[in-house]
Amino acid sequence: MIRDPAYSVEPWQLRERYLDHRLLARSESIFALANGYMGLRGNLDENDPHALPGTYLNSFFELRPLPYAEGGYGYPESGQTIVNVTDGKVIRLSVDDEPFDVRHGQLRRHERVLDLRAGVVRREVEWVSPSGRAIQVRSTRLVSFAQQSIAAIEYEVTPVDTPVRVVVQSELIANEALPGSLKDPRVSAVLRAPLVAEAASTTSSGAMLTHLTRESGLRLTVAMDHEWAGPPGLRRTSEADADLARTTVTGRLAPGERLRLVKFLAYGWSGRRSATALRDDVAAAIEGARYDGWPGLLSAQRAYLDEFWNSADVELDGDAEVQQAVRFAMFHVLQAAARAQDRPIAAKGLTGPGYDGHVFWDTERFVLPVLTYVRPDAAAGALRWRHATLGLARERAATLGWSGAAFPWRTIRGQECSGYWPAGTAAVHLGADIADAAVRYVNATGDRALDRSVGVDLLIETARLWISYGHHDRHGVFHLNGVTGPDEYTAVADDNVYTNLLARRNLIAAADAAERHRERWGVLAVDDDEIAAWRAAAAAMAVPYDEQLGVHPQVRGFTLLQEWDFDATRADEYPLLLHFPYLNLYRSQVVKQADLVLAMHWCGDEFTAADKARNFRYYEQRTVRDSSLSACTQAVIAAEVGHLDLAHDYIGEAALMDLHDLHRNTRDGLHIASLAGAWLSLVAGLGGLRDHDGTLSFAPRLPSRISRLAFSLLWRGQRLRVTVRPHEATYELCSPGAAELECRHHGERLLVTGAGPVTRPIPALVAPGPAPVQPAGRAPRRRETG
Amino acid sequence: MIRDPAYSVEPWQLRERYLDHRLLARSESIFALANGYMGLRGNLDENDPHALPGTYLNSFFELRPLPYAEGGYGYPESGQTIVNVTDGKVIRLSVDDEPFDVRHGQLRRHERVLDLRAGVVRREVEWVSPSGRAIQVRSTRLVSFAQQSIAAIEYEVTPVDTPVRVVVQSELIANEALPGSLKDPRVSAVLRAPLVAEAASTTSSGAMLTHLTRESGLRLTVAMDHEWAGPPGLRRTSEADADLARTTVTGRLAPGERLRLVKFLAYGWSGRRSATALRDDVAAAIEGARYDGWPGLLSAQRAYLDEFWNSADVELDGDAEVQQAVRFAMFHVLQAAARAQDRPIAAKGLTGPGYDGHVFWDTERFVLPVLTYVRPDAAAGALRWRHATLGLARERAATLGWSGAAFPWRTIRGQECSGYWPAGTAAVHLGADIADAAVRYVNATGDRALDRSVGVDLLIETARLWISYGHHDRHGVFHLNGVTGPDEYTAVADDNVYTNLLARRNLIAAADAAERHRERWGVLAVDDDEIAAWRAAAAAMAVPYDEQLGVHPQVRGFTLLQEWDFDATRADEYPLLLHFPYLNLYRSQVVKQADLVLAMHWCGDEFTAADKARNFRYYEQRTVRDSSLSACTQAVIAAEVGHLDLAHDYIGEAALMDLHDLHRNTRDGLHIASLAGAWLSLVAGLGGLRDHDGTLSFAPRLPSRISRLAFSLLWRGQRLRVTVRPHEATYELCSPGAAELECRHHGERLLVTGAGPVTRPIPALVAPGPAPVQPAGRAPRRRETG
Repeated sequence: MIRDPAYSVEPWQLRERYLDHRLLARSESIFALANGYMGLRGNLDENDPHALPGTYLNSFFELRPLPYAEGGYGYPESGQTIVNVTDGKVIRLSVDDEPFDVRHGQLRRHERVLDLRAGVVRREVEWVSPSGRAIQVRSTRLVSFAQQSIAAIEYEVTPVDTPVRVVVQSELIANEALPGSLKDPRVSAVLRAPLVAEAASTTSSGAMLTHLTRESGLRLTVAMDHEWAGPPGLRRTSEADADLARTTVTGRLAPGERLRLVKFLAYGWSGRRSATALRDDVAAAIEGARYDGWPGLLSAQRAYLDEFWNSADVELDGDAEVQQAVRFAMFHVLQAAARAQDRPIAAKGLTGPGYDGHVFWDTERFVLPVLTYVRPDAAAGALRWRHATLGLARERAATLGWSGAAFPWRTIRGQECSGYWPAGTAAVHLGADIADAAVRYVNATGDRALDRSVGVDLLIETARLWISYGHHDRHGVFHLNGVTGPDEYTAVADDNVYTNLLARRNLIAAADAAERHRERWGVLAVDDDEIAAWRAAAAAMAVPYDEQLGVHPQVRGFTLLQEWDFDATRADEYPLLLHFPYLNLYRSQVVKQADLVLAMHWCGDEFTAADKARNFRYYEQRTVRDSSLSACTQAVIAAEVGHLDLAHDYIGEAALMDLHDLHRNTRDGLHIASLAGAWLSLVAGLGGLRDHDGTLSFAPRLPSRISRLAFSLLWRGQRLRVTVRPHEATYELCSPGAAELECRHHGERLLVTGAGPVTRPIPALVAPGPAPVQPAGRAPRRRETG
Repeated sequence: MIRDPAYSVEPWQLRERYLDHRLLARSESIFALANGYMGLRGNLDENDPHALPGTYLNSFFELRPLPYAEGGYGYPESGQTIVNVTDGKVIRLSVDDEPFDVRHGQLRRHERVLDLRAGVVRREVEWVSPSGRAIQVRSTRLVSFAQQSIAAIEYEVTPVDTPVRVVVQSELIANEALPGSLKDPRVSAVLRAPLVAEAASTTSSGAMLTHLTRESGLRLTVAMDHEWAGPPGLRRTSEADADLARTTVTGRLAPGERLRLVKFLAYGWSGRRSATALRDDVAAAIEGARYDGWPGLLSAQRAYLDEFWNSADVELDGDAEVQQAVRFAMFHVLQAAARAQDRPIAAKGLTGPGYDGHVFWDTERFVLPVLTYVRPDAAAGALRWRHATLGLARERAATLGWSGAAFPWRTIRGQECSGYWPAGTAAVHLGADIADAAVRYVNATGDRALDRSVGVDLLIETARLWISYGHHDRHGVFHLNGVTGPDEYTAVADDNVYTNLLARRNLIAAADAAERHRERWGVLAVDDDEIAAWRAAAAAMAVPYDEQLGVHPQVRGFTLLQEWDFDATRADEYPLLLHFPYLNLYRSQVVKQADLVLAMHWCGDEFTAADKARNFRYYEQRTVRDSSLSACTQAVIAAEVGHLDLAHDYIGEAALMDLHDLHRNTRDGLHIASLAGAWLSLVAGLGGLRDHDGTLSFAPRLPSRISRLAFSLLWRGQRLRVTVRPHEATYELCSPGAAELECRHHGERLLVTGAGPVTRPIPALVAPGPAPVQPAGRAPRRRETG
């Protein structure tokens, strides 16, 4: 699990220095290119060898039955699985009569670079065929941010020392064979041959294939087109059949002569548009790409990223590995979200089939708060997508006998696809996470239009759920019983502090929103009595507290549960859920992921500093981080309570989750929320960013090995840049014509204006006591680098 | 759901006076004949029409995969389903060229009688064929108690007024087509064509078929043999093919002339014996039956039942319907258990495919305490079966990370087959139920041999589970968290009073048994420290109590949960589990079946009288009886707390569960535990039988409409007969040469000797206050009959 020497540490790129077959699967996820609309796994151009070929379109899914050994009322019977669509990445090469395959012959050199500023993956290969022909292959792959349905590949072959005949086959392949699924339930169900061929045609310089899914009724059209250059005498053919289209370019090259091919790929899909309309859409996309040409695509890509990094970059002196990792992380967050445009941001983005391509709560909890500050348009799109599924969420609530909206625990299209309700339907905090993301987005952006068109509906319908789900007991206290909080090792428990605190905010925010938007009362059937009920439930909300320990139990009674025997748990028994029954986990004080600690991040104004310190210490001892959604939050609170070096360790874990494959499942796709968490761990952790109640505040403080941290964020249209050094922090408005921005620095009110930066000293740290202890063997890896 | 007029009320038989096609499925269960080894549903001789043909052999099952939409550690992957084996009941009849089918022609008369003393079903039919031929058919069917593998049918045809040619086809049919399964998860999965033909042969007067199951590897051999009589000129043929054997008798009958056939059926199966051994076993069984002949089988059947009724009969004056029903109930309890002989007693006995033919906890909780007092040998056999599965239960516990034995929630062979752990694996009370059944059996019988060979192992291994499952909290209190008690509308909750009280007894009983049987310490690796840990856990066991209400919450916190809105629940929304998600049920104060009230029955010495009265009233308001395992217990406690007419109502419900099809699923098989509960509701309810701590006590008291109750029970080899009248009760030892028996009558110590009956007055009832209230629409039907 330590850094693999194949990957280099460089500030703005990730370089794979040689091809290690053990890393093949991980690299396919890490070198994936996507734009939120489409995603291509980092398969080799020639496709073989591969671990998992993958091409995905956001929301393009197939249905599959969800079976139950014993069914129950309200169990979803149909699931949704992302489809590996027609693969347009494939460019095969034959050298004389031998296929180019890195497993055969001699691989003199094989390097891949993910360039985080150019937004491309470059590959350079020098290969000697089994019969001794040496060639160089260079390719550059791009999924366009500027043109959402376009990907392109520049492919070049040059013989090194002897003339060769080369055959380059550029393909579209549908219904690729996929390796069998694993037993691990986290790994996606594999769908075999999900596409039914509808049309296939060739053009003068490419081909087009159209397919339909069997059950979900979606239509997909993929086109490829080509430019080529090389010595005279090249021969070119195109052919197209049901599941295969191929454009072949053949020629004879002298040493140093180059055959260059540019492949343009366009993807279009719809559940509604006709076959002919879709064909024309895709043809138009191809024409648009050819009009800009390869250089135009490259320059637009760089311009898009320059603007992104302007607000999204985080600079870090003192930990080069994390510096690289946080940029890698933000690049992939962008790739998951940029052109999602009113479609979901899935847990794995578009980098692999993990979790069936579903979106969960962590999009709203971890990803949207980051996008809100660096790409607010993408956050708005994701909120509009949730709003678009509100009708389905209302239906689901009605099925379950609840009021308001019950959003799905996991879904692609909006229908509940979870087959295990104790960790799905019962995790009602999802509604509060959505509401909270909307509130924070509106606060940070001042986007009144979204508040009106999306926010008020989401807030009111989620608030309604709490009223029907909870009740006032005979003492008047309002309880939310039988809920599963963020920690999936505790389920269907009572009064989860995280859920209750967020539900309280949700209720108050709904009441405020309803009062702001009386024009929606009629449509939503809101009245004064209902608003009063929301405020009453919020005021009476139970928040369990263990007076004896001075600790908040994450659910009622938690601190009296049996302790987990960590000393008797072997290293190979993690993750625990694969080695112990849920029943044992649920009955014990063992925490998969930050839960009460997560509450202390997002509802930090509800805890005293002393409670935070005690709580953090208590849960550190019991948190195993079997979820990738834990380290970033532990970093944030470790920093707040003064354990800065521990915070640094957790930052490393969050940022390196995928680069170091810490959960051994990066092969199935990247952990987008954990990658967003890398930003949170630095900006909310070391920077101390909080935005409770619409106030922007910072409490920056650096760990011993970091000498400088700089980041930017957007606040109501202005860009604020914060630079933290060991003893001072500087705040500067960077937007042209910026007026002023009010924020807090360690509690002190600051007014930052366009007149220039404001620098303040960082107060001395009050010693936080001895370092917290983690379960045996579960401490994060120490950051030792300089 | 009221009594169907097709069924008559008579003291010793159940008569179906005419054929109502709507009752076909129910009657197939009600007229089922079984002996614990084999069971034949009450299908018509000619098999058509039928709802569900069924022939079952105890423990003859097929495996089937258990699928999960989302799997989890420790989920069983293979289930066991009882197989509808080769059907030997079928005797078809053709009259001239028309098949005898009650749906065609004219059915002048159709009567079936289940004779509870003779142990047979008699059928009498007068039918006119579509072309006007009138015939009488009489048949008598028997499943032998004396010869476990034998069933027999006497079949007679007589033309009424015109000569006819009759063809009688007596068959063995394997892999009968079954109707499709229903959506209700309680209904068994249907297995299609589970039997693979291995051999088929004919004999001079019958045939034999041998089959194998595909997955479970069990071999089944079925033979039929025949005697016949009639006018001269009868023609007889036999043939046998893979899935069909047929013996045909053809002849011409003048009016009044009779064709009589006696069919002998023998069933044998094994997972180990060879095909030839099994063939010989079955041939020997046929020879044994033919040796006794039809009259011999009839007389042995009656003798067996005479002895049974001697100890099992309950007499009741004042409610003829319940009088009949309790005899019907005890007859079917006997049919489920009599020759089970170290095999399980399934929830449906051998009367239908419901619950996949599985055995659950209710065998030990409801059936064995009855058998202990009326057929102790059958109780011992069922305990020996559990003991035989101890190795599997130890393996299951080890898989789950627990010590001792984790018996399966549902099984045929001993492996866990439950596909929903919150209502399966979490229902750990099962272990205590088994331990309790063993303790009560040994107490009542004085069977030291079973104590030594079975009891001590069961007690120790079940006690070990509590130690590993529970823990002492920081105050020293011992908790069993995350358990599901008897009430399946509350799951995975903490400190279920029923479970904790029984676990406490289990721990103490294990400690006592270990001290009684030091010879087992080596084998079981018991030592003094372990015994001390059992006693310490027992002494510190949590028993939650709501001081404010003076009520025991059935689980910790129950009395503060949300109330169910019964007024808003429609009658067609019961059973609730088919109309509401588990999540809503689990979070609410709604009770499927007696749970705390069940604890008050079996651990009644742990509650004060005042607590019992308050608890009963509290849970009455919240108990919907969606389980058949509730009314009998509510009867027992209603009687104890003085609500005698309510007790009478619940007795009626328990006793008439199947005769009146109160849960609308009698078609899938009878509710054996509820039928045993009918005995409990009368003997423990009105008779006040308790056997806490090995002491036999009674507190008889009759409701207003019952003028006399008499029952017997066996206590350490002696038969005690108790006769209760409104103002007095008489106790009499009826065994030849009985010495003396000590018991209590309303707390008073009585010594009953062979010298003669002892009569005591019944103390006046202290007024119990107003009648308890049930949820809207869920009150039991009032007993109005005289």
